[in-house]
Order: sequence, then C-alpha cells, then structure tokens
Amino acid sequence: MSKQIRIGLFGFGVVGNGLHDLLNQTKTREITIDTIVVKDPDKERSISKEKFSFDPRAILDNPRINVVVELINDSEAAYLLVKEALSKGKNVVSANKKMIATQLDELILIAKANQVSFLYEAAVAGAIPIIRNLEEYYNSDTLSAVQGIVNGTTNYILTKTNTGIHYSDALEEAQRLGFAEKDPRLDVEGFDAKYKLVLLIKHAFGVMLASESVFNYGIQHVKKEDAAYASEKGYRIKLLARAEKLGNHIVGFVAPHFVPASHGTYAVDNEFNALIVEAAFADKQLFTGKGAGSFPTASAVLSDLSALQYDYQYAYKKSYQAERTSFLADFCVQIYAGSADLTVLDLIPFLRVETFFQGDNYNYKTGWIRFDHLKDLNLNTVKELFFAVLPEPLFTDALRTNGQSKQPDFEAVEYSVLR
Amino acid sequence: MSKQIRIGLFGFGVVGNGLHDLLNQTKTREITIDTIVVKDPDKERSISKEKFSFDPRAILDNPRINVVVELINDSEAAYLLVKEALSKGKNVVSANKKMIATQLDELILIAKANQVSFLYEAAVAGAIPIIRNLEEYYNSDTLSAVQGIVNGTTNYILTKTNTGIHYSDALEEAQRLGFAEKDPRLDVEGFDAKYKLVLLIKHAFGVMLASESVFNYGIQHVKKEDAAYASEKGYRIKLLARAEKLGNHIVGFVAPHFVPASHGTYAVDNEFNALIVEAAFADKQLFTGKGAGSFPTASAVLSDLSALQYDYQYAYKKSYQAERTSFLADFCVQIYAGSADLTVLDLIPFLRVETFFQGDNYNYKTGWIRFDHLKDLNLNTVKELFFAVLPEPLFTDALRTNGQSKQPDFEAVEYSVLR
Repeated sequence: MSKQIRIGLFGFGVVGNGLHDLLNQTKTREITIDTIVVKDPDKERSISKEKFSFDPRAILDNPRINVVVELINDSEAAYLLVKEALSKGKNVVSANKKMIATQLDELILIAKANQVSFLYEAAVAGAIPIIRNLEEYYNSDTLSAVQGIVNGTTNYILTKTNTGIHYSDALEEAQRLGFAEKDPRLDVEGFDAKYKLVLLIKHAFGVMLASESVFNYGIQHVKKEDAAYASEKGYRIKLLARAEKLGNHIVGFVAPHFVPASHGTYAVDNEFNALIVEAAFADKQLFTGKGAGSFPTASAVLSDLSALQYDYQYAYKKSYQAERTSFLADFCVQIYAGSADLTVLDLIPFLRVETFFQGDNYNYKTGWIRFDHLKDLNLNTVKELFFAVLPEPLFTDALRTNGQSKQPDFEAVEYSVLR
Repeated sequence: MSKQIRIGLFGFGVVGNGLHDLLNQTKTREITIDTIVVKDPDKERSISKEKFSFDPRAILDNPRINVVVELINDSEAAYLLVKEALSKGKNVVSANKKMIATQLDELILIAKANQVSFLYEAAVAGAIPIIRNLEEYYNSDTLSAVQGIVNGTTNYILTKTNTGIHYSDALEEAQRLGFAEKDPRLDVEGFDAKYKLVLLIKHAFGVMLASESVFNYGIQHVKKEDAAYASEKGYRIKLLARAEKLGNHIVGFVAPHFVPASHGTYAVDNEFNALIVEAAFADKQLFTGKGAGSFPTASAVLSDLSALQYDYQYAYKKSYQAERTSFLADFCVQIYAGSADLTVLDLIPFLRVETFFQGDNYNYKTGWIRFDHLKDLNLNTVKELFFAVLPEPLFTDALRTNGQSKQPDFEAVEYSVLR
C-alpha cells in the first residue's frame, strides 16, 4: 500500500545534512536517498566526498528517483530544478519559502499536469505542522485569522532586546550561535516572514498574493527605549506575520507588534515559532514548536516524504473562496513610533495622535494611521525610527473625516482585534 | 472526487446540537443530516419535534445514510450502535471517549472487515487536531512523550483553586457555568482524562491499553494549603494525562502535577486544553485550544466528516511498534502529599522523604515513592489527602535497596523528565 520513496536530494546544508542523518538514524527502509547533488565540490562536509554528485542531471535524468527534495539556498536555481523535476513526473518536496511564495501558482499547474505532488511543510514554521493542518483540518471551518511568529532568528533577537540588551549585541549573539546569517537582512527586515505569510494566506484563505504587495517591516531599528516602553506597559515586542479577515477582505502584513500577556505568542521565546489559528467554530488554537534548526526542519521534510508514500497532495480546498475574497491593502491601525530625533518622528502621518512623549534623549507617539501611508515611507531604511503595532483593532475605515474636524467614527465599521 | 456525506445522527445534546447548527451556518451542501435519532421524545430541544426520530432503525436500516455520527452519553448503547453501523458498511464518527477507549480494537476490526472508516478526533481534546496529527504528521518521527491537559472541567476548577478559591466553590461555579456535570466524578477523578490518554497512547505509541490498567487520580481533594504550597514554589497545579517512553517501556497515568512556569501547560487556563508532543527530531511541540464546548467539539466532528469525503481512514501506522513496546506499570516518581491529618499522610509509603513539614493545621511531605504502592491505595477515595507529582524525572528503578540500608541509587537507570 505504501510506496517506496527514492530521493534525489539537492543541497547538503543544515537541513539537507539533517535529513540525511535523520534517515540514517530512523532506518526507514521505505525512504532512501539515492543521489545527493551539491554545487561546490571543495566544501568540507560531514560525509565523504564520494557520496556526492555535482551534476543536477544525476537526479533529474535518473528514472529510479521518484521524489526530488530541494534544499538549496538559491531560490532562482531552486525554481528551475523544481520546475524540471515536476515536469519530468517526479514529486517534489521543498523548503524554499521565497521560491515557493514567488512561483507557487505555476508550480501547482505543472504538478497537476504531470500528476505529481509538490509539498512544502518545512517552508513555514519548521517542525510545526501548519500547512497540513490548514489544508486538512480547517477545511470545513471558517477561518478568521492566522497569525504568529514564523521567524526564529528575529524571535531570538527580540527575546534578548526585550530584556534590555542592545539590538546589535543581540544580533551578534544570534550570529555566533548560528541563528542568524552573516547578512541578516532577509530575516531582520521581515522578508522571510513575509514569504511564509504568503503561503499561510494561500492555505488559509485560498488567495495567492504577489509577495511584493505584502508589507513587511522588521526589527532592525528597535532601540532600548522602545523595549523599555513596551515592558513598562506590560507588552513584549514580537515580529508577527498576521493575516485576518476584515469583512470580506483579507489583510496581511509583517511588522513588530506590542503583544500583551494574554496573547498566545507572549511567552514564546528564543528560536521558537508560534501560530495562532482562529476559526469560527474551532475557536482559537495555538501551535508552538521549533521553527528552524537542522532536525526540526528535516523532520517536517520527512513528514512530507511519509505523506508521499500514500500519494498525498495538497487539495487547496479553500481556493474556491478566493473569488469572493479580496486583499485589502489599506486600513487603519494604531501604532507606536519612537525616535531620538523628533523630526524623524514627524515622518509618520498620524491621523490622530493618542499619546506624545518628548524626552531629553527619546521621543515617541502612539496613534492611528492609515496603513497605506506607512507603506509609502519605506521604513526598513529609516534607521532612526522604530514602530510597532499596538494591540488594538484594525479598522477598514476608522477615521472618516467629518467635514472639517477629523473626528474618529468607529461606528458600523468592520473590525478585527489582535487577540 | 469528494463524496456526498449523508449523516444519521444519534444524540442531540450539546455537541449534536452544535453540529446541526454548524452545518446550517456553513451551508456545506456536500454534508447533510438525513436523520436524527434521540431517546427521549419529551425533552425540550432547540428545533421542532418533527425533525427527530426515536427509533435507531431509522438510521441503521436506512441505505441513504453513509455516515453515522454517534454523540450520545450512554457508552454501552453507543457501542452497540457503532458496532452495528460499521457492520452494515456505514462509516462512523464518534466522540465517545469511554466507549472508544474500551472497545477500539474490536471496532477497528469490524471497520476493516467492512471497508469503512471509524474516526474520533472529537473524542480527545475537542477542537485540537491531535489524533490526526499523531497519525499523519509524526508517523515518521520517533515520539518520546505526549502529555497535557485533556479535561476542560478540571482545568477550569484548578484555575480557580490555584488562586486560593476553595475546591467546592470552584466546582459549584463550574457547574453553574455548564463546565461540570451535576455528578462530576467522571471528570474530577480523572476518568475522562484517562480514556483520552488511552487513545493518545494508541495513536502515539501503537499500544492499546485496557483502561483499568491505567492509573487515574483526580483533583477533588485539593486543599487551599496545597495550592498555597505550589504557588509559593512557583508552580501551578494541573491535571496532566501523561504518557512517555522510559527506555523500551511506555508509562502512562493521570494525576495532578505541580508544573513550573517553563512547562507548556503552565499558562493554559480555564476550559482550554493543551497537548505537548515530544519527538526525537521535531522536538517539542505545543497545541492549545478549546477542549470542550458545543462548537469546538462539533468542529472536530465536522473535520472528520470532511475527511470522510476523501475516504480518510486512520492507518494506525505505529502499531508495529507495539510488539517491542511494553507498558510499564511500576516506576519511581517524586510526589508531594498534603493532609491535615498526620496519620493519613503516613498512608503514603515513601521510599525516601525529601521534605517534611508539620504545621498546626496542615502537614505535607515530598519524596520518592514506587508508583505501584500509590496505585494500591485507592487515593481517589481518601478525602483527607491530596497528592501531586513533582517536576522531577521518573525512574524505572530509582531506589534499589542495597542490603539493609535503603540508599537511593540513581546510577545507570533509565529516566525521563517532565519538561
């Protein structure tokens, strides 16, 4: 009943190596690695050189191999490999969130045309089985929100900065421990989290978004003063990938949030990830686990491989919803913005300021803004400023101007709360 | 591709009514209720009397019905209905943990012989998709432990008693709010949690245990002094259903635990449930969600119904492990025991006492005991005594007597830690 899986593995980095060791340790006879292809013949690796091939054809043209596992860094090369593998009737398992978030629709079509599977549980939140659960478990339920911590690097750094450690020291420590890359921008600017969010939105709400259309702002400008403010109010700063229904629309973005103690992610620290799924009937569910690391990520890959033994495919059952769901790029949100430089703080076009603190060395404002205005500012590049979303509802149209006076009018607007 | 589901529903209590409303609200055309059979024709219900039948044959002999949903209280009647439904080639979805924990092996055989499915996600931890994840996601990984809060009633009561409220007041409040039954013994003595644990062990470790062989001790004797002691030490009292590997053995029991702040269940309060899955490669994962209630439980039933549209069956992939895994009934564990009556405290045959406090009104001891000795005491009936397991490792053979002197010998013994 269960199929023999013969793997062609592209890449032998942290996850590829983990998968190799994991298969060795579990001695799963039904799942074996046939061929490993790597790029650099001279790189030092944990197993002997004879075990590697350096020519992709050794996998792509190998009829014995029925599953390609793609675990390389280069997302463009990955795309070409995955595309060809699917076209040649091989199932594919990948963990390359950027590539998948960018090319999913095309890859689904190719997989369908060739009657093979394309699975990628490891691409989102490592060991947490979130894609499979969104696909299989909540298909009949009406989801209202999916949000959480999907990037272990930034959560590790924030765990440190939340206790008052300087951002650059926290980053350095994360790099020393292997939790952050030498060039950390993909993680700390929220791009990695955004790619994952795009995949979550596809499986939760059936909508495939272009990743450029999704806003991401990271944690690289967080200052001690911001952390102190959050802490004083009983909040912790967490980088949330957040998607939710706002009326008939879907909103989705990545940004630092001030989360209260009642929030599911509040106590999720270090490299751990957490996802909160909110459903009309199942209510609120929290999944916590390791979002990165060799074995946790490899174990998600292995779970896809096991599923392939039973010819599992994602059914994308929620895609039918896509027609009646539109992505809403603009809405009103309450934020905190802090800066040592008052003129920089003035960059933020608040619709209504709720608090304004002016100190000797640091200043901050909280208040309502239009999300569209934020997006125009390219804040990932403004080093002197940090902002975070406050635990207040989002509104589709919170602050309708009433003649001359800008009075807030919260009546009868659709809203959604950060719970 | 997806099958039309025509339901015969037995029972219209909290969950049955929830399922009915949920299907009405989601307007799922592929899943419809054909016939509802209830026992009592005179009971007041939320929908009109004509919608009910009172004869089980209206479902069992109805060839239109392809899925029987069994949601009645009486576990013996449920067993007969489920057995006949499966025998007649109907798929069955049930939430009756007691019945399933007692009769599963036979029902699996009948389902197999008739090529139908028997699903019961709603039987364990309500809306949390734990059975499906143990079946589908961790099948390739080596699980070391599954533990957590699987009974919302007792968690609600403990949330109150942990803050110093008297047990009987907390129970009364839970009853008023509908979280506890008039006769709460099934919940507060840990029987309900035990049935769920038996199912968790089956899906996590492949072993089917007779529920009589699994120890359960509840929360009904917790006193203010016990809660105060726990709180002073930074612990909270939680009723844990706990199964873990101890060497080649499986241990499993239900008992109150003192859990430290680092434990996944520490902050899980009120009627919420939580499950921690520990796997060799995926590491530790926490699932939190509503464990009871009309809609959360009905949504788990609906999830099974959706799965049946795709002919889903549990594969019980871990059953092969059962041959090399044995249930270990005896091991060493460190506990706290408190009583106002010193002579009652002497009932507990400690192998080694770690602390002993004697007060004017209350006394307690902590120390190591053999689990077998605990089981012999029938502690659910000893009102004057409360015990809880401390966050210390379990040992297979912690305290080997060395000639005359009872010296502990922790060397080279297999152990497992409450993490």
